[in-house]
Amino acid sequence: MVRMELSRLIICETGDEQVIYLKEKDGDRAFPIVIGIYEAAAIDRKIRGHKTPRPLTHDLLAGVIRDMGAHLASVVVSELREGTFYAKLVLDRDGASTEVDSRPSDAIALAISTGAPIFVDESVLKAVGAN
Amino acid sequence: MVRMELSRLIICETGDEQVIYLKEKDGDRAFPIVIGIYEAAAIDRKIRGHKTPRPLTHDLLAGVIRDMGAHLASVVVSELREGTFYAKLVLDRDGASTEVDSRPSDAIALAISTGAPIFVDESVLKAVGAN
Repeated sequence: MVRMELSRLIICETGDEQVIYLKEKDGDRAFPIVIGIYEAAAIDRKIRGHKTPRPLTHDLLAGVIRDMGAHLASVVVSELREGTFYAKLVLDRDGASTEVDSRPSDAIALAISTGAPIFVDESVLKAVGAN
Repeated sequence: MVRMELSRLIICETGDEQVIYLKEKDGDRAFPIVIGIYEAAAIDRKIRGHKTPRPLTHDLLAGVIRDMGAHLASVVVSELREGTFYAKLVLDRDGASTEVDSRPSDAIALAISTGAPIFVDESVLKAVGAN
């Protein structure tokens, strides 16, 4: 597992596909992930610290996790299969860990929002040829 | 509390604001709620039973609730304040109930997806003049 951070977010408002770049925290490897406009907008709001009067969908997700007495321990981009990245939320509750299947975009929006660390499996970095 | 159901969803792809109508299950009272395009699209997919290869954000929300060992007992549109509807998810876990603050759109998307009942507080029906 390699600790990564969000290094760039490119929003093209006229297109359906947006791009985020994850970069190695203690190194230089980086790679892009194509995400949807809604998730890109959610990540953008989190980066800028924009508050909205009512909870948007990712805020609701954070609210459910918190109100269930859990917290987001980390998010992991675990696999690249047939061109699709797979990720998971690692939730911690009373010391017990639960993994929930997620798209990377939702996982990263939530990580940015809560400050949880982002990890990428070494096999994913190899598969994308990050260097 | 009055049991309601989603009776109409009006999507206008050129506009930012979409409309859902909630109608009394055992009566005729109904009223509209303006929601965003992303939430309207999510509700539309749920109504049509469309599956996507990867979990979209509301599916992730349902996944988090399920994987934490809880279930969505109901959703409640509880209040209308200064033109904004307030709602909550009522989550049940081991017989204990947790309420999570939500917009009506997210709550209803999740209710349609899971089959959970939708309730509206009588005070909201009075406030909107539903008849």
